[in-house]
Amino acid sequence: MEVIIGRAPHQKFSEALMRHSQGLAVAYGDSDLDKSIENRFNETFETECAVFFVGTGTAANSLAIAATMKPGGVVFCHNEAHVAASEGSAPEFLSGGGRLALVGGDHCKIEPDQLRKTASEYPQKFNHLGQATMVTITQATEAGSVYSLDEISELSKVAKEYNIPLHMDGARFANGLVKLGCSPAEMTWKRGVDMVSFGATKNGCWCAEALVVFNRDLFSHFQFIRKRSGHLFSKTRFISAQLEAYLENDLWLKLASHSNAMGAQLEQAIRNSNQVRLAWPSDSNQVFFIADKTKAKIWLDKGARFHPFPTPKGMEKEISDSEQVYRLVASFATKQKNIDELAEIINV
Amino acid sequence: MEVIIGRAPHQKFSEALMRHSQGLAVAYGDSDLDKSIENRFNETFETECAVFFVGTGTAANSLAIAATMKPGGVVFCHNEAHVAASEGSAPEFLSGGGRLALVGGDHCKIEPDQLRKTASEYPQKFNHLGQATMVTITQATEAGSVYSLDEISELSKVAKEYNIPLHMDGARFANGLVKLGCSPAEMTWKRGVDMVSFGATKNGCWCAEALVVFNRDLFSHFQFIRKRSGHLFSKTRFISAQLEAYLENDLWLKLASHSNAMGAQLEQAIRNSNQVRLAWPSDSNQVFFIADKTKAKIWLDKGARFHPFPTPKGMEKEISDSEQVYRLVASFATKQKNIDELAEIINV
Amino acid sequence: MEVIIGRAPHQKFSEALMRHSQGLAVAYGDSDLDKSIENRFNETFETECAVFFVGTGTAANSLAIAATMKPGGVVFCHNEAHVAASEGSAPEFLSGGGRLALVGGDHCKIEPDQLRKTASEYPQKFNHLGQATMVTITQATEAGSVYSLDEISELSKVAKEYNIPLHMDGARFANGLVKLGCSPAEMTWKRGVDMVSFGATKNGCWCAEALVVFNRDLFSHFQFIRKRSGHLFSKTRFISAQLEAYLENDLWLKLASHSNAMGAQLEQAIRNSNQVRLAWPSDSNQVFFIADKTKAKIWLDKGARFHPFPTPKGMEKEISDSEQVYRLVASFATKQKNIDELAEIINV
Amino acid sequence: MEVIIGRAPHQKFSEALMRHSQGLAVAYGDSDLDKSIENRFNETFETECAVFFVGTGTAANSLAIAATMKPGGVVFCHNEAHVAASEGSAPEFLSGGGRLALVGGDHCKIEPDQLRKTASEYPQKFNHLGQATMVTITQATEAGSVYSLDEISELSKVAKEYNIPLHMDGARFANGLVKLGCSPAEMTWKRGVDMVSFGATKNGCWCAEALVVFNRDLFSHFQFIRKRSGHLFSKTRFISAQLEAYLENDLWLKLASHSNAMGAQLEQAIRNSNQVRLAWPSDSNQVFFIADKTKAKIWLDKGARFHPFPTPKGMEKEISDSEQVYRLVASFATKQKNIDELAEIINV
Repeated sequence: MEVIIGRAPHQKFSEALMRHSQGLAVAYGDSDLDKSIENRFNETFETECAVFFVGTGTAANSLAIAATMKPGGVVFCHNEAHVAASEGSAPEFLSGGGRLALVGGDHCKIEPDQLRKTASEYPQKFNHLGQATMVTITQATEAGSVYSLDEISELSKVAKEYNIPLHMDGARFANGLVKLGCSPAEMTWKRGVDMVSFGATKNGCWCAEALVVFNRDLFSHFQFIRKRSGHLFSKTRFISAQLEAYLENDLWLKLASHSNAMGAQLEQAIRNSNQVRLAWPSDSNQVFFIADKTKAKIWLDKGARFHPFPTPKGMEKEISDSEQVYRLVASFATKQKNIDELAEIINV
Repeated sequence: MEVIIGRAPHQKFSEALMRHSQGLAVAYGDSDLDKSIENRFNETFETECAVFFVGTGTAANSLAIAATMKPGGVVFCHNEAHVAASEGSAPEFLSGGGRLALVGGDHCKIEPDQLRKTASEYPQKFNHLGQATMVTITQATEAGSVYSLDEISELSKVAKEYNIPLHMDGARFANGLVKLGCSPAEMTWKRGVDMVSFGATKNGCWCAEALVVFNRDLFSHFQFIRKRSGHLFSKTRFISAQLEAYLENDLWLKLASHSNAMGAQLEQAIRNSNQVRLAWPSDSNQVFFIADKTKAKIWLDKGARFHPFPTPKGMEKEISDSEQVYRLVASFATKQKNIDELAEIINV
Repeated sequence: MEVIIGRAPHQKFSEALMRHSQGLAVAYGDSDLDKSIENRFNETFETECAVFFVGTGTAANSLAIAATMKPGGVVFCHNEAHVAASEGSAPEFLSGGGRLALVGGDHCKIEPDQLRKTASEYPQKFNHLGQATMVTITQATEAGSVYSLDEISELSKVAKEYNIPLHMDGARFANGLVKLGCSPAEMTWKRGVDMVSFGATKNGCWCAEALVVFNRDLFSHFQFIRKRSGHLFSKTRFISAQLEAYLENDLWLKLASHSNAMGAQLEQAIRNSNQVRLAWPSDSNQVFFIADKTKAKIWLDKGARFHPFPTPKGMEKEISDSEQVYRLVASFATKQKNIDELAEIINV
Repeated sequence: MEVIIGRAPHQKFSEALMRHSQGLAVAYGDSDLDKSIENRFNETFETECAVFFVGTGTAANSLAIAATMKPGGVVFCHNEAHVAASEGSAPEFLSGGGRLALVGGDHCKIEPDQLRKTASEYPQKFNHLGQATMVTITQATEAGSVYSLDEISELSKVAKEYNIPLHMDGARFANGLVKLGCSPAEMTWKRGVDMVSFGATKNGCWCAEALVVFNRDLFSHFQFIRKRSGHLFSKTRFISAQLEAYLENDLWLKLASHSNAMGAQLEQAIRNSNQVRLAWPSDSNQVFFIADKTKAKIWLDKGARFHPFPTPKGMEKEISDSEQVYRLVASFATKQKNIDELAEIINV
């Protein structure tokens, strides 16, 4: 069992909470601050959108799935996606028994023809298997890759062929955005994305996630869906206060730019080493390498911080029994010094 | 539809978050801070207990119900309890379709013989109705009353007759405790309570709730139950940091003592007024009065802060059509000045 | 725990199954016989309706509730209704966690003003309590009473005020219909009923229930709802064959007329006895009486067949501690002789 | 979308229903007939077992999964298993959100090492992915193959390594049994199977399935699980009457022997044809062949009865774009004449 090391939050977000620690406010998502941050999202995405705050990425993804679920419903996701591999069946449970249908593709990106093939197995009105309800993609992906704008369009096209919405798990939204160098609108609704789990937690917040929905009809009952799963906070300002600081002066983009840049440095360090080899190239702040398991244990004991990562389908033959894929994660707080120390441990 | 006004959190809790805004920590509930606060709970309750952090009271209550649920299971609660009246069916949904059976009693306190009668309607092995799984009581109650230690014992006795656990919704645990002047152990496991939703949010935190379980077997699968409903935070220190400050130097008891004292002042102000009458006596920080609806509207417009409250069963005849029950809530931040202002508005 | 005695089915239904025991047929509800019986329902109800076969009344009711459920949804039913008192939480479970809100009224009939009051507690968009989704009434009721056409209209009016559909649990549909002496259309859609659990099992079939829906939009996903709960039979002719015999030559009405007539004889026998007293008047084939528990035990030992019945709310004071309400059920197979024997046992 | 043709039931089962169409019986599974058939199962399986009647195979499988489910639970099944491919998410829905993890293996048989590998991905207590709860295999499989006794033992061994029960979907139990020529005990509990969905519907009954459980503790709450999903019939004798006829004088084995023998004849006919080729060898009554899609359409128009079947994983390269796998099913009613007619249509 993996011990998962997490960062502390960025100081700015605790300061934001300090700033809002006074006075009265309407509770349950209707405070002035809540409303003003919702408006900020309209500006950020250059369109009128519905915004719902929740506390975890798993809640954001699962409730998005719940909001679009149908009886016997099936959601298409990559077989290594967070919803499938790391959310403890919350998507199924919180959607009242929906099913995930796993689709393949390199580096955690859904391959459009595989999506088309899998979706075609669910003919409308044939109740023995189920009905297609949604496609979900992750940007940046769990494997550090980033969908190009054209790749997003292509998947949106398939989703439209099956008349189902396209959801983006944006737990690392900022990392993907910074990599592509485009606007939030360009990476989402302009390319056919219907809703985004907009994650701020992995990019420095204590816990702050927002479901951003471009087609409000999809979410007509969302208030009840969130409440019945215990995800409505009374003092919602604790989320909106963090998001205020997050969006202010482009802090979110600065944090993600830094972690992506540190990711590139990590990748370079891996490439430079003759002790390990790069598993695949990274587009963002996560870097994956292959190493001998015995050596890896020694490095971990010396203070290196990385985690084992399940071998992706199709790579089984590239990795010997004595080896393992490992994951490195750079954050807003990673410094060049940390990377140098890692390189030193590995290369000794 | 009621607009619910909530307090800001107490400054101490934002300061605690500032203090913990640095360094690395193991995520998902396994940080050193998480562990140390869990130990603090052992000390506070003078026994080895299992402690699980969640973000909302609805989650704490619903997941407690889920953890003890059985197929066709039925939970006994007061008909005005928060689980029945204010949690949007989360207890049913998060427990996979459990049912609440409503029991009566004055001032939101379950009356033991009514509990006995209702529980007896569910004979074991008779699957047409369902099987008894839990009793839940609220301390302090939604109506401002507080169960005496003997009353808790009496309900625990009934629960034992039906071989089901007794849960305490402690959203206002500190208010009840301060009123009784006893220890947490005396108010819970020493009187037969099996688990507590230990709430800190209503008593000043941003959002911090802990499920405290005296019989760990009841919760063997809890990690999975919490995860599958999206209630496991990555940076759980967010909650444990608040609880550290909460328990330190008896801050929690001081805050509750103050709000209870202000509640007593509010009650006195209501008793002194010839414009309104006390609905029933209060034991804690919530005070209920009956007033003419037209007058109430005027007072609210003048800045008074109180909310309509559903007429309890059995009181229908005491309240005329032009009248309504209203609720006043005193908090850690309430000052005598606020009460004087309220009295002035009402009595003009 | 009650031992429930059930009738054998009427011979006609086994004969129908004999008749259809040959040849091939399209499975899963699409056989010619299935289609022809669906058409027979159109004729019976004098309108185009959607018809779905299921095997139990609990499935029919629960899937009707599931088909109209919304997140945080609340269904209004009488507090002694079968869905609330005898279906083992299936309505909640199969609807993914919906809630039943219990409404009062004499003799198992929902009282319109009580419905209005309860429904008004669920203001639209206030997610803390839930959202109204359906009203369900039983015809004939669990207490032997029958709603008049005007009473149905009145409840339909309340349902429309809250913009929710009206469902009729017709486990004893034929008994109600025969009592009123009207057409199926008059007792349902002409009076604002949106869907009916049309039960044939209690009126002589082995197991045959049909969900009849006058507004097909309400049930757009029903095929998936039925399949995902395991209620789609492969040889659906098993049900349609029974229903063919049921509707042929008004067999269903003849069977119900007989059982109602025998119910009237039972009621007369109870009225004639000085050993027991009628609990309340009956409109159909179920008759309820109050008797001394010790005597009742003796009668049961002598071969009388009746069952204890929970004391309805409001009747507690009419029944002493040594007494109990009992239920008598007349069926298509009940003979005057059986009633005479019962009277003899009781009156000795 | 496939139109599924089903057989009529065997005449014997309608006769059994005729025979039991009279007299009174205790309802809801407690009739004398129910009890006597349960005892018959003890004899058939040479051990004390718990027997629960249900109406569909989907209900039997899904409720078995529900009865052993744990929070975040994961059931291991073959990727072409009926639970995964043909039950409309009922296993997930009726188990309250459990997940199916798909395992590979040739001809619908789970390959033990692939099971071991998949199960090892769910380390105990690691809540991010889920916890292993059950293995389910189908005998005879959906692809016409039959597990050998040693293959069953081997899978049972893996299940024991992960401390989870082994379930057998016996929708075609008799076909597997007849093929192996062993006793029911030898094919199940003597080889480590913990429970069986004992199917009689596909082997000639109208609708009759029995969950047979060798370890009753696994199913302590089963009565409630069945009731809350609407699967408890009032006149359960309609199932037990069919099963009485089914088990009497080895009728079930005779029917399955016949359909297996006809399956062998079908396979021979396919092997003899130069128009089609055998997809893989069959062990039972289902035979699979590969044919040109245009030709197949012509044959179907001429009255041949077979269905398209999804291409199994790993066979994609053996089948050209103009071809398709088709399924032939022999039943108790199949005659040599039918096979000759089929051969004639295909070979013209």
